[in-house]
Amino acid sequence: MKTLDFDNDGIVILDQSLLPDKVEYVRCRTIADVAGAIKNLKVRGAPLIGVTAAFGLAMALAAYENSQGTMPEHFERARAQLASTRPTAVNLFWALERMERVFKEAYNNGSREQIGKLLKDEASKMFAEDVAANQALGENGQELLAAGSRIMTICNAGALATCGYGTALGVIRAAARRSKINRVWACETRPVLQGARLTVWELAEDRIPVTLICDNMAAYVMQLGQVDAVIVGADRIAANGDTANKIGTYGLAVLAAYHRLPFYVAAPLSTLDLQTRAGSDIPVEERSGDEIRQYRGAQFTVPGADVFNPAFDITPQHLISGIITEKGVLRPPYLETLNKYQGSGNRCSASQRENQF
Amino acid sequence: MKTLDFDNDGIVILDQSLLPDKVEYVRCRTIADVAGAIKNLKVRGAPLIGVTAAFGLAMALAAYENSQGTMPEHFERARAQLASTRPTAVNLFWALERMERVFKEAYNNGSREQIGKLLKDEASKMFAEDVAANQALGENGQELLAAGSRIMTICNAGALATCGYGTALGVIRAAARRSKINRVWACETRPVLQGARLTVWELAEDRIPVTLICDNMAAYVMQLGQVDAVIVGADRIAANGDTANKIGTYGLAVLAAYHRLPFYVAAPLSTLDLQTRAGSDIPVEERSGDEIRQYRGAQFTVPGADVFNPAFDITPQHLISGIITEKGVLRPPYLETLNKYQGSGNRCSASQRENQF
Repeated sequence: MKTLDFDNDGIVILDQSLLPDKVEYVRCRTIADVAGAIKNLKVRGAPLIGVTAAFGLAMALAAYENSQGTMPEHFERARAQLASTRPTAVNLFWALERMERVFKEAYNNGSREQIGKLLKDEASKMFAEDVAANQALGENGQELLAAGSRIMTICNAGALATCGYGTALGVIRAAARRSKINRVWACETRPVLQGARLTVWELAEDRIPVTLICDNMAAYVMQLGQVDAVIVGADRIAANGDTANKIGTYGLAVLAAYHRLPFYVAAPLSTLDLQTRAGSDIPVEERSGDEIRQYRGAQFTVPGADVFNPAFDITPQHLISGIITEKGVLRPPYLETLNKYQGSGNRCSASQRENQF
Repeated sequence: MKTLDFDNDGIVILDQSLLPDKVEYVRCRTIADVAGAIKNLKVRGAPLIGVTAAFGLAMALAAYENSQGTMPEHFERARAQLASTRPTAVNLFWALERMERVFKEAYNNGSREQIGKLLKDEASKMFAEDVAANQALGENGQELLAAGSRIMTICNAGALATCGYGTALGVIRAAARRSKINRVWACETRPVLQGARLTVWELAEDRIPVTLICDNMAAYVMQLGQVDAVIVGADRIAANGDTANKIGTYGLAVLAAYHRLPFYVAAPLSTLDLQTRAGSDIPVEERSGDEIRQYRGAQFTVPGADVFNPAFDITPQHLISGIITEKGVLRPPYLETLNKYQGSGNRCSASQRENQF
């Protein structure tokens, strides 16, 4: 199931807001289309958002005409519009910066066609790198799991959240290939139900046994002794290891600690943000209260009820047993182990590789 | 808003499965009607289920005809049918036992009319006792709260769950009357959304400030320092203090302990079950997976997805800061403090009163 494609006529994305009821692709022809798709969760998942935005910039350059001011002005407008979509996932900013670097290097030396090709190539490279990173971190992560493992996860950190294979679900996939997975507990992940809609669907398609629970059942399932590890994705990992991820992640981390279960974050290094010192510096997106008040026409509460709808929370590093990356499983103290990397997969040399099993 | 009424033509209940969209009353004319209303959550909340079942037995006796076998056989059939509806809340069994005792005492000495009147009087007495117990425990509980309190609760332990006033919400109501409540955080309480549908509605009607969150947001709200105490209801309290309550309660108790917040259970003594030694002996009801897979016509996941739907969980006594009852706030060790009571409000003499502030 391809989540993202790019051709001469723009970007084609799988509309994840309709899954699993409908498998529909939508075409984005303008930056406003791309920004809207990211804001409205048609495209979601930190790594996928980043690469989608990268293709968005390539598309913007292709659509450049002199009437729009200079080419750098045009590029900057597109970049700013994409940067304003969602504040928490760092992959978006990482991808935009990487594209900007390519643009700036190419601008003085190339024609519009040449620059456009370089940007498209860079976005394609990021796409391929993301898939490779997921596969590598999946391999690294599966070594942590014993045969018969029962894994709890939240949201969708799967192929649907990335350019393919997945982060948390990449680990589960790699472990399932070795017949190590007894069961995945998918937390439904209110309010937008990425667990119920996307993770259950994605794992069922792969024939990996998955049981759906409501988020408030996680503690009880742990108490019953039915969980061996919790594995989640990440939207931003600060320099000290504090991790922003889908709302509910922090609660799972506390519950895992209480039940003495390992709690792993699985993410490519593009999710690492060394410029952010700690979790308290990560902006947490608050979304419309209507996401909580209603769902696909069904009313959940009193109309106009006061609600609080943070889309993410911050898990402090001391609750994280390990961070599973394409370069290995990083262990505390994260301030040391994370800072060997650049927060960008392509900038890590092979010599920096550190496998900490 | 009356949750339950009884007249010569049967029982009238507020259909809570339709709230807050529709305020509709349904009439139960047969024991099957009453049992169905309890099973399908038209009537819910441990104390209210108990008193509804008591009125059910009074109604059954009124409908007795010789063709149905002996009067005790008829009574027993009705009792068994009501007892089979929901396994976890002990108030149901407590109420049925109390009615059976009245029936057995009256059977040899009275006419059908006299027995019927005694049963109806007993159910009415239980109704009045429940309201009085809630008001008393509300008063006892509010003393625990300082001005400006921000209280988190789950499910609906309110007037709607009882014969009036409420348990957890009774405490909040009593505190609000003294202007002590800054805000109530209502967890929506998946899958049936008693928090979103009932607690938000009930508190809004009383003009007590309430903010709705999804269950997976509770940890983050605590981390933000926005909670002063958690107060929940109970479906059964074992002799050692372990408490069965709506699924999600146990998780909140762990989170409260982690954030060093007091975690209170508010319940009348009719919820106390001294015959049950510990939480591990309390049966936990599992309900249909469709409650999770869909809601009012909206599909949440892949059709036929494997789900686990426990309706309750068990909070171990060591996570409970205090049990707020009509006789005072009981503190650990619960095996001592609970065992002074009989698990039945009317059987506790005034001399047993122990106020432990």
